[in-house]
Amino acid sequence: MAAITNANAKETVTAKKLEALRERLRAHNLDAWLIPSVDEHINEYLPRNRERRAWASGFTGSAGDFLVALHEAWLFVDSRYYEQADTEVALGQIHVSKMGMEGQPGLSEKIKALAESSQHFRLGFDPFTLTVQQYQSFKKSFDSTGIELVPISENLADSLWMDPPPPVLSEVFAIPESISGKSWQQKLSEVQDKMKALKVDVLPVTKLDQIAWLFNLRGQDISYNPVFIAYAIVTTDQAHLFIDAARMQPQALEDLASRVGIHPYEDYQKRLSEHCSVKTVLIDPKHTTAGTLFIVEQHGGMVREAEHPVELMKALKNETEIHMMQAANLKASRGKIRAWFWLERQIQAGRTVTETSFRDAIEGFYAEEQDFMGLSFNTISGAGANSSIVHYGTPDPAKKLEKGELFLIDSGCQFLGGTTDDTRTMFVGSGFIGSGQAGETPTERQKLCFTEVMKAHINCAMQRFPKGTEGARLDGVTRYTLWQNGLDYGHGTGHGVGAFLNVHEGPNGIHKLATKPLEPGMITSIEPGYYQPGWGGIRLENLYRVIELEADADGIRWYAFESLTYIPFEQKLIDFSRLNAEQLQWLRNYYAAIVEKIAPTLAPDEAAWLKEVCTIG
Amino acid sequence: MAAITNANAKETVTAKKLEALRERLRAHNLDAWLIPSVDEHINEYLPRNRERRAWASGFTGSAGDFLVALHEAWLFVDSRYYEQADTEVALGQIHVSKMGMEGQPGLSEKIKALAESSQHFRLGFDPFTLTVQQYQSFKKSFDSTGIELVPISENLADSLWMDPPPPVLSEVFAIPESISGKSWQQKLSEVQDKMKALKVDVLPVTKLDQIAWLFNLRGQDISYNPVFIAYAIVTTDQAHLFIDAARMQPQALEDLASRVGIHPYEDYQKRLSEHCSVKTVLIDPKHTTAGTLFIVEQHGGMVREAEHPVELMKALKNETEIHMMQAANLKASRGKIRAWFWLERQIQAGRTVTETSFRDAIEGFYAEEQDFMGLSFNTISGAGANSSIVHYGTPDPAKKLEKGELFLIDSGCQFLGGTTDDTRTMFVGSGFIGSGQAGETPTERQKLCFTEVMKAHINCAMQRFPKGTEGARLDGVTRYTLWQNGLDYGHGTGHGVGAFLNVHEGPNGIHKLATKPLEPGMITSIEPGYYQPGWGGIRLENLYRVIELEADADGIRWYAFESLTYIPFEQKLIDFSRLNAEQLQWLRNYYAAIVEKIAPTLAPDEAAWLKEVCTIG
Repeated sequence: MAAITNANAKETVTAKKLEALRERLRAHNLDAWLIPSVDEHINEYLPRNRERRAWASGFTGSAGDFLVALHEAWLFVDSRYYEQADTEVALGQIHVSKMGMEGQPGLSEKIKALAESSQHFRLGFDPFTLTVQQYQSFKKSFDSTGIELVPISENLADSLWMDPPPPVLSEVFAIPESISGKSWQQKLSEVQDKMKALKVDVLPVTKLDQIAWLFNLRGQDISYNPVFIAYAIVTTDQAHLFIDAARMQPQALEDLASRVGIHPYEDYQKRLSEHCSVKTVLIDPKHTTAGTLFIVEQHGGMVREAEHPVELMKALKNETEIHMMQAANLKASRGKIRAWFWLERQIQAGRTVTETSFRDAIEGFYAEEQDFMGLSFNTISGAGANSSIVHYGTPDPAKKLEKGELFLIDSGCQFLGGTTDDTRTMFVGSGFIGSGQAGETPTERQKLCFTEVMKAHINCAMQRFPKGTEGARLDGVTRYTLWQNGLDYGHGTGHGVGAFLNVHEGPNGIHKLATKPLEPGMITSIEPGYYQPGWGGIRLENLYRVIELEADADGIRWYAFESLTYIPFEQKLIDFSRLNAEQLQWLRNYYAAIVEKIAPTLAPDEAAWLKEVCTIG
Repeated sequence: MAAITNANAKETVTAKKLEALRERLRAHNLDAWLIPSVDEHINEYLPRNRERRAWASGFTGSAGDFLVALHEAWLFVDSRYYEQADTEVALGQIHVSKMGMEGQPGLSEKIKALAESSQHFRLGFDPFTLTVQQYQSFKKSFDSTGIELVPISENLADSLWMDPPPPVLSEVFAIPESISGKSWQQKLSEVQDKMKALKVDVLPVTKLDQIAWLFNLRGQDISYNPVFIAYAIVTTDQAHLFIDAARMQPQALEDLASRVGIHPYEDYQKRLSEHCSVKTVLIDPKHTTAGTLFIVEQHGGMVREAEHPVELMKALKNETEIHMMQAANLKASRGKIRAWFWLERQIQAGRTVTETSFRDAIEGFYAEEQDFMGLSFNTISGAGANSSIVHYGTPDPAKKLEKGELFLIDSGCQFLGGTTDDTRTMFVGSGFIGSGQAGETPTERQKLCFTEVMKAHINCAMQRFPKGTEGARLDGVTRYTLWQNGLDYGHGTGHGVGAFLNVHEGPNGIHKLATKPLEPGMITSIEPGYYQPGWGGIRLENLYRVIELEADADGIRWYAFESLTYIPFEQKLIDFSRLNAEQLQWLRNYYAAIVEKIAPTLAPDEAAWLKEVCTIG
């Protein structure tokens, strides 16, 4: 009975919200209204009061657009969220389009289909919830279709959402040069130099990690990302930060106010409209909302589309940042090693471990490390079949780890100065190496798949490559042995990571469409995997920095990767006969480094275990 | 003295041409005039009367833009043409920018620099010599700079070039369905179906290979490409071909006229302007000139930017085309094998062979094959240091092949039904295998580099990959072993090849920016290399078709390559100890296939030699 009542309640609530939205649509003479996932700062993790799509549709996943038309409503989700969307939304009111499946329409396609019967179709949207890139793509797609894009300054969801949770407005604090490696004055001068070289007068800075990086400030407004809600505008001789000054540490405020105008957050649009008049304004279509673009266009600014200079500057870590990232990832490596040892002991002692109890254990070990500031994303702790769900964000307290299962732990931290991200896949029920108890032998298939994923990881990690090599080519270098064995994975191979900033950042990446060359100082994950629904999943992820090797006689500049993560791979799942000499040598060197860097800092029993699992026969 | 006189004459002629051009500039109130390499049909090889850039600048290379400003003239060339440009142009009148070298400006950059001193800078161009993509890129780059792009309907070079050689207007002939595999009526219907699906009314077809493919016609107007100069316009229920009807074989004309309007070439612009009014017109920015775009815009057409449907249809070869391509490449393989045997005999007999005499020999063997229609590009025949010049297009009659040298032969043919392209690098002075004469042992460096290039070739050739894999990732798969050895090459790994059409075609390719997934039926070259100026160069190229393997249990669709080319690799340059078991097995299978397919068709002495060089110890 309870389930039916809940389902009914869900339908009723959704019906009321949709009816109210449709009333607004009619008032604005619109045929449909778009509620994207994105907020004013193109955040991956939204402030609580910006979760408009979740409020309107009931769907809480991290990605998915919601379209409310006069007689239909559609939610568009990717393969990660097929099941979750069906569970969460009122299916009597909302169609769920499972994008990527045969016959399931994409957003543009559905809008065009809805518009087909009418001469003129008005699609409303809040321009601050759409990137310039998305807006341009819509414009191109709707060209000569009779669909009009109608920006509405009032966000229709906001106008109906009576009781949004208040946003978290944390204290904003400065990080010293011993962490940032460069003063904000220096960074600002460099940004202004780049603006002059690009011949632009005004640079809006609207992404929160760009603002935090530029001014060497951090906050805790948003889950996992150590940023704060603000806007900034840089001109060739000025800088303005839009933030409630009362939130800032007094010393940081005083320091900043010497050169930066501090204004209320709400003044951003007005100030931008003043600054942009007859000026050239840099707009990065990928990292700016259409709302900012429209202000510039409406107030006589000349738009220069270009890559945001802060993106690349932020990605090229300086020596201090590298040092902090190394230290942070050593702490996180130690945390995962200690949690693994804890797990082995629990299982050997016959105690029950669940997905949540392991998660709590590892987060406890992380918290023991110095300068721990929180997690960098929600810990993925999936056992058995759950390990095959790539973004398994909801560890189950009822899911016990069973002997013979694969167990995937993808986790990361924010330390003061550094951000971490690593994944290991373990074999449950192995006990200590050599204990040889029954039911403890991995299957041939488990060993084959694990070893091939590890080979893919090693192949990328040990690859040297010339200056100018893009991520797409390294993605091929990572997958080729998997492909030869009929294996593959549906996600990218690597993403950029911020220095005490967002765990996902650009512009570098290793995936099929990554066209940015990797450069020394960039940090990337390498994380190949293999997933088979029902059977289980494997992912092996380290962070690496790009380093430069010595130039050769031909004058080619050669680059390589150096690991920041030092955690062994599950020895019991490795089929050493599948490794070639180079792969084995890489593993030997890596294991020696783990023991050297981590063992001296562990308790004796932990250190003894680590040395044992880092011994290659 | 002769050299000085020639140099003076060159300066005088160039000065006269530039002065005449500048007079026209002033008449049109222009600050500069752009003469790109491209012609009205975006040809790689130009009709003789369209070589405007060569006429105006003196530079005859295949790529390079020429900019004539009121007081300066600039030629922009890439690394292939640094030397040739300096030799050919009047350096007293023309600056040569060697793009890619430190401090050498690109075209846009130079235009911006020239415009810097003036409030307003008018850059003139013939819109039929610029692709829409280039035009859009200029527009973006010159945004808010005061540079105005001024299309001029009169081509200023044409107006001054009094005596251009007459264009070749060859007979246009039909190819039967036994060669094309599909009637032109069927192709036309499929194109029209795609247009309807894309909701476009009008499709201009302006590239010559697209037109030739669509109507199953061929000609010989242009070097190496079996095409003819024409335009076409397809609507959802009509088709129009713009060509001098007198050039067409009567039977082909009669057949076509049943459904296609035949109009004079000169009527294209007028007819397009009539057809496009209030219609949606598909424009592919990469494959259409700005001239066509402007006609559509000026006559009330609505532009829909999209990929040209013919490009992909042409790339996906049908069974008949595959069969014809296989047959053609077997003939070309036999030609190269016979020329190689001829070379070995000449050298063993102590006779002199030069770059040109070998070229003549191989072209003679090609011409002996049935249905030979000519070369598919100019034969590259480079010995010793010349082998390191990637596009060495001028074999030297004075350059004798010397013992111990590398000798690179990149050549291809047009046969009725199929196009070929392959490259082998040979070792000069080896005589027959096992003859053991002095001076015949390759150096360790020659063997190492050759073997690594061959491994790169094999690694790509034997790679299986899932549906959706783009060329960029396969480029990484090709290079990774070279990179581990500190080697690389500056060109792409592969290009698409037409079926009795252009030797270079899209949309598929294997290179760093190739974002198109490879699909069964596509044909691609695989051609890794290594080049060291002064020392020599190595390139090993085969053509392959993409095939589909059996789907696996996970439902992933797996693709692989199957060779069209069957020519051995220079045995004396292979260090077998550098190959792994998979590479060696691929080579064994490949050699067995060569012997099986080619040996039975050779003379006894040729066949015996082939079997010997296909024997792996």
